[in-house]
Amino acid sequence: MSVVREKAEGFCDRELQGVYRAIRERRDVRSGFLPEALGDDVLLRLLGAAHNAPSVGLMQPWRFIVIRSLLVRSAVRDIFSQAQQVAADSYAGERAELYRGLKLEGILEAPQNLCIACDPVSERGHRLGRQSMPETAIYSAVCAVQNLWLAARAEGIGVGWVSILDPEALKVLLGIPAHMVLVAYLCLGYVDGFQPRPELERVGWEQRIPLADVIRLEHFDGDHLLTGTAK
Amino acid sequence: MSVVREKAEGFCDRELQGVYRAIRERRDVRSGFLPEALGDDVLLRLLGAAHNAPSVGLMQPWRFIVIRSLLVRSAVRDIFSQAQQVAADSYAGERAELYRGLKLEGILEAPQNLCIACDPVSERGHRLGRQSMPETAIYSAVCAVQNLWLAARAEGIGVGWVSILDPEALKVLLGIPAHMVLVAYLCLGYVDGFQPRPELERVGWEQRIPLADVIRLEHFDGDHLLTGTAK
Repeated sequence: MSVVREKAEGFCDRELQGVYRAIRERRDVRSGFLPEALGDDVLLRLLGAAHNAPSVGLMQPWRFIVIRSLLVRSAVRDIFSQAQQVAADSYAGERAELYRGLKLEGILEAPQNLCIACDPVSERGHRLGRQSMPETAIYSAVCAVQNLWLAARAEGIGVGWVSILDPEALKVLLGIPAHMVLVAYLCLGYVDGFQPRPELERVGWEQRIPLADVIRLEHFDGDHLLTGTAK
Repeated sequence: MSVVREKAEGFCDRELQGVYRAIRERRDVRSGFLPEALGDDVLLRLLGAAHNAPSVGLMQPWRFIVIRSLLVRSAVRDIFSQAQQVAADSYAGERAELYRGLKLEGILEAPQNLCIACDPVSERGHRLGRQSMPETAIYSAVCAVQNLWLAARAEGIGVGWVSILDPEALKVLLGIPAHMVLVAYLCLGYVDGFQPRPELERVGWEQRIPLADVIRLEHFDGDHLLTGTAK
């Protein structure tokens, strides 16, 4: 006699819609931050979302450093400015002009910043899953960033990821031990709105690729999946 | 005259709840997959969620390879088995016994697998944000995994991330170019349920850390945030 196992149910329509809406309407926010600080309650909800991320071996290798001090944020802003100058010098012509017009961070405007660091060699998790792919410790911390980003969007809070900075200089500034990896530096705060399209697409820096172009079946060069209807 | 800018609104209660629920109830699923295949429609919704991930410079450096072929999945299973044997040999005593009892993948049970690869040197995005932190290309692909994982949970679909395998062997099998990075290999499918707690905690492999332990203010060794109430 065979037993038919029942399929677990998904979420109700509105909850499901909330998940897809957060994914679709999340933006990398660099401007429009408001001066009102986040309360500890909502900040803890966001950090709780990050802390619920998957982690290899249940390692939870992350540390979250909340930065509210204007003094510390100003020092981070200096680290950004140096990297930004180097980057600016690498572009020429029209691209250089486009680059100069980009607003790339909200370190001082956002009343709180968040640094996510990862200990990739922690004994937590007993090396499970890391012997073949040690990089998954860091990937776990990246998943934490994405969880926080989506929860923030649902709360009406903007998040911007700043990667134009020297991670080693930032580690020294924040006292992060040498063996740890600085994974992400985020600007966080209430905003006056969310753009309907990614900023970089709006200003002509880059265009989004159609979904069908990045899907293949069975093999890297395999067939497309339903290219006729995929958007 | 100062203009007070209005705060953007968050989601309605039910949508917000959906986002937090997906984050909280997402599980790394290694067993309980049902034989019913995912239709193209729901698979495209999940891949669309992944494709909506943030990416440095709007680079979208990912490629998604959907694997349904039992032949290909069997070959992946062999690559897993080899890495699994090496890992098993590295544990001794009680830990070795615990390890032997773990179910670590559902490659053959889940009717579809998904490989996420990343081109970290693509010219897309014009190097924006990558000159100082080139690793953010790969981090973008990790965010895509997490988006898909949360959307899947909301749809009632289980996802398991298999990192016990030789990524280079898998790249050869799937025809992924040498310069690209194999970021994640996932098992995907309907399931008979979702565990209330992470499997690794339930079987005593590792325990979750309290949220308060991973948050600091202003500095790596700074004060805790509201340790009295944080859970």
